[in-house]
Amino acid sequence: MIKKPLILVCNDDGYRARGVMELAQVAGEFGDVIVVAPVNGQSGMSHAVTLNQPIRLKTGEMCNGKPAYACSGTPADCVKIAINQILDRKPDLVLSGINHGSNASVSLFYSGTVAATIEACMNGIPAIAFSVDDHSADADFTLAVKSARTIIKRILESGLPTGTCLNINFPRISPEQFKGMKICRQTIGVWKEEFEKRVDPQGHDYFWLTGEFSNDEPLAEDTDEWALSHHYGAIVPVSVDFTDYPALEALKLWAL
Amino acid sequence: MIKKPLILVCNDDGYRARGVMELAQVAGEFGDVIVVAPVNGQSGMSHAVTLNQPIRLKTGEMCNGKPAYACSGTPADCVKIAINQILDRKPDLVLSGINHGSNASVSLFYSGTVAATIEACMNGIPAIAFSVDDHSADADFTLAVKSARTIIKRILESGLPTGTCLNINFPRISPEQFKGMKICRQTIGVWKEEFEKRVDPQGHDYFWLTGEFSNDEPLAEDTDEWALSHHYGAIVPVSVDFTDYPALEALKLWAL
Repeated sequence: MIKKPLILVCNDDGYRARGVMELAQVAGEFGDVIVVAPVNGQSGMSHAVTLNQPIRLKTGEMCNGKPAYACSGTPADCVKIAINQILDRKPDLVLSGINHGSNASVSLFYSGTVAATIEACMNGIPAIAFSVDDHSADADFTLAVKSARTIIKRILESGLPTGTCLNINFPRISPEQFKGMKICRQTIGVWKEEFEKRVDPQGHDYFWLTGEFSNDEPLAEDTDEWALSHHYGAIVPVSVDFTDYPALEALKLWAL
Repeated sequence: MIKKPLILVCNDDGYRARGVMELAQVAGEFGDVIVVAPVNGQSGMSHAVTLNQPIRLKTGEMCNGKPAYACSGTPADCVKIAINQILDRKPDLVLSGINHGSNASVSLFYSGTVAATIEACMNGIPAIAFSVDDHSADADFTLAVKSARTIIKRILESGLPTGTCLNINFPRISPEQFKGMKICRQTIGVWKEEFEKRVDPQGHDYFWLTGEFSNDEPLAEDTDEWALSHHYGAIVPVSVDFTDYPALEALKLWAL
């Protein structure tokens, strides 16, 4: 008997988020699905791991009909504990998301959704992060789900290059406006931060982090932000080797 | 009057850690120093940012004779709040560390120390992370401080390529054993995780994350782990563009 592919689904919005339910369902068309996701939202947690406190696992949960484990830790913790503690074999694919909110450009640095795929990729497992540029609870995932179906099928057949995972983002548009998928590079940009200063009832200052994304290359047609603003889905291959190779050659001449 | 360079110093071990004190002192030889570092240890926090709770700043502190702000947030928060709230001009250099513990190879993914430099680099500021492969409270920073002096001087003179920051690690050796600095690429490897399962007094399971680093290419002389194990200091240029360019070309042929 041929074993069905084993697909691990995680996210950073928590195991009860609509996005992960949608992803678990589409994953179920291709294999056996296990969901291991945070108990609560872990947005902005990047690749953080829980070192200084114990991790709890809530077992016996369900996520859209699939067995689910709710983990007290971060998205990276979820992937680690799934691979090393919960599953009895290595998953064939790790899917993360569908995130409520874009993780394009430099947002991927802060993203727990993307970090989960980097963690899987380091462990030799093909991995894909899906995000939709829509934070609302009733975000429309139709487009993302339809495209996920094609991409999951292709990657289960072909795999991904070693050391590469995918960061896939979808624009907030109706399916009729959709122009297709584009392979892109990460847009160069930065979050322009502001801190909103407030005073608490005891008279002490505190700050809220706020800001907006600033695109340094809005006209570059090979970037993920360009694709999103022109009604394409954006696929960025992300490397788990962060070495800057051109800079490496330049620095060798420095004789430090 | 020529303004002295403004140097922002941060870390992830907290503003009272010995490593940040040493770094603040050596930075003081080159310019005006401000320390903005976490109140407490933030190891393993990666590039996490604090979105769901307010950030507090403890002002009026000192770090080895330099003015210091202790921030309730993560290392990335420290850089953001320093640039956007505390400082009245953009720093000329951001230094992070000296971290108690190696951030070589894939440990940089989990590292708050390195994330602080990536955050600075995104904002167009040359940035360097320093770490010593020694977790002990009385770690010997002599070597790191001496090398930092040379590197800081050089980078204040020459800058760094746009979009590149440096991840610098030192081995746990005596200064006499030191062979010099090497420009390296990030070693391919993975943390082999184990979860230690325990039962709390109420009879509920909990897990501690534990593991050890596994080097997938111990013989590759161009890697940071090879340099460290052969008594070199390792300088890895890190890119803030995570795009996997070779994979990008391959994926374009997929016609997704």
